[in-house]
Amino acid sequence: MIALEIMGGDYAPLVPLEAALLAAKQGISLLLVGPQDIIVEGLTKLDPQWKSYPLQICDAPEVIGMDEEPVRGLQKKPNASIVVAMKALKEGRVSGVISAGNSGATMAAAVFTLGRINGVTRPAIAGFMPHPTKPVLVLDLGANTDCKPHYLEEFALLGINYLTSVHGKHSPRVALLSNGHESTKGNQLVKETHALLAQNTAINFVGNIEPDRAFVEDVDIIVCDGFAGNIFLKSVEGAAKVVIDLISREVALLKKGETEESKTIASWAANTLKALSKKADCKEHGGALLLGVNGTVVVAHGSATTKQLLSGIELTWEAGAKKTITGSTVIKEARNERSI
Amino acid sequence: MIALEIMGGDYAPLVPLEAALLAAKQGISLLLVGPQDIIVEGLTKLDPQWKSYPLQICDAPEVIGMDEEPVRGLQKKPNASIVVAMKALKEGRVSGVISAGNSGATMAAAVFTLGRINGVTRPAIAGFMPHPTKPVLVLDLGANTDCKPHYLEEFALLGINYLTSVHGKHSPRVALLSNGHESTKGNQLVKETHALLAQNTAINFVGNIEPDRAFVEDVDIIVCDGFAGNIFLKSVEGAAKVVIDLISREVALLKKGETEESKTIASWAANTLKALSKKADCKEHGGALLLGVNGTVVVAHGSATTKQLLSGIELTWEAGAKKTITGSTVIKEARNERSI
Repeated sequence: MIALEIMGGDYAPLVPLEAALLAAKQGISLLLVGPQDIIVEGLTKLDPQWKSYPLQICDAPEVIGMDEEPVRGLQKKPNASIVVAMKALKEGRVSGVISAGNSGATMAAAVFTLGRINGVTRPAIAGFMPHPTKPVLVLDLGANTDCKPHYLEEFALLGINYLTSVHGKHSPRVALLSNGHESTKGNQLVKETHALLAQNTAINFVGNIEPDRAFVEDVDIIVCDGFAGNIFLKSVEGAAKVVIDLISREVALLKKGETEESKTIASWAANTLKALSKKADCKEHGGALLLGVNGTVVVAHGSATTKQLLSGIELTWEAGAKKTITGSTVIKEARNERSI
Repeated sequence: MIALEIMGGDYAPLVPLEAALLAAKQGISLLLVGPQDIIVEGLTKLDPQWKSYPLQICDAPEVIGMDEEPVRGLQKKPNASIVVAMKALKEGRVSGVISAGNSGATMAAAVFTLGRINGVTRPAIAGFMPHPTKPVLVLDLGANTDCKPHYLEEFALLGINYLTSVHGKHSPRVALLSNGHESTKGNQLVKETHALLAQNTAINFVGNIEPDRAFVEDVDIIVCDGFAGNIFLKSVEGAAKVVIDLISREVALLKKGETEESKTIASWAANTLKALSKKADCKEHGGALLLGVNGTVVVAHGSATTKQLLSGIELTWEAGAKKTITGSTVIKEARNERSI
């Protein structure tokens, strides 16, 4: 069973409830955390038969709003739904938590309730970057805007731990995001991190990678500070969207055409675009993992649609089932594996 | 007249000579800097009538290679072609310099020979980012990987100076690249820079901008440190290329089809892609400006094609003709315009 916060996100409670029903119909058992009356009313409206699916409710009337300052919100509302969900995870009643709510509050609640993995200084947000052939895990995507070299080394180990245990990947290839592939390129942080990664025998470090090469080269993990990672992610999303929008505009013009020819082209282009948008949209992956805390926590986009949140629930389910992250001490050991 | 380094770039001397001829045929007068025999031989092969165009030759046999360490290269070869070109600019014989050669050497030669503009700590590389409606000037794109807040303030002033004087833009809108639009978002550098920009009355500061909003919002200049700027640029180029490549693959499949229908679609898609690639490719703009030195200097891509280099020559010609950058003291004055 995994916990889903019902009042989180821009379209709560409807979208989380819809996603929960779809997931439950696939056999994913869920603990719905939020105000009981709202949950029961919503589910009954969506599907009067909801009780026949693996759905349980955990009443938690207090919610930390999207614009509340996370730590202050947690202090004011010690029984907020996100805290209740984390406690369920801590107590082993669920194997993972997903929320589309205030991501700062999710992170703070995770750190306070679950604690950090032994050896981890800062948890990181890890997400899969769209890629023509295989997704690449990028971290940190924004949790830590100012980093020290050893944080990035820890991010590498967290990524390796995740891909190895959840995806069964052997010795994933780790690259360091930089403005040039040469080891001399990068800002001060990148240069110092390069040296750290190169000398850690627990890391299959393949060197620096430029962002445009991320779609071409054979790497599994890209590490970076949260500021650069966020710039990377949003640049890719933005550029892909611009290109797709420009083509869509051409297609819209064609659709207005009266000829058979223009209709044929428009239909082909519309289908191609649809497939492409899906590939290009990082949100398809449904959520990003909060790595470095003692438990499986997924941060979904506040603007996630039902389909996206469903995909996030599946991610949480998959990662939670493998119980790979909880209580791991791999990071501390691996940090000591430096060859020098 | 502007100076073009002939031995710079991956395809020298052919591509620079071809681009020079095309530019000269448009009426742009050029000083070709490099080994005289190679230039004469190349031009004669390309067009025996080359002497009827506004082309002059300045013999400079020494060249700093693409992989030479810039400062050491300059010390070893005080008469290298890039230095000779900068001297011509310094002495007023040309109004601008463009090179597709070693960009570090170009920057170092510019700083040593021309000097920095009064009030500028670090010169910056400024380029136009592709945009569906109007290009946005982004700086720094990679000259300074580690910055202080006042460098970014200077970049803003350099960008304003350029757009105002060369493009006649009134009070350009300046944004600061960040991971969130709120003033509280960003790494330490961005937060401190935000405060500096907000209190400088010479800057029409519109706040933070996320990279995906750069294609949507009404801004003229985006400032950032050279590391983040380079990540931004290369992410955008990379993502646009991936999307276009994916469509191209579909188009290639269609072309193999025998039916009239598939041919019609393939022809439409190929044309649309061609137009799009042009829009998406930052290299179309031909080169990036080195702002902050006393003179018009353009750094072209080492891999620039003839067409791209021609576009860079036009950029140099346009910026050089306005003589806007040389000897400006606007930066120093503007830096003192802080309201507090």
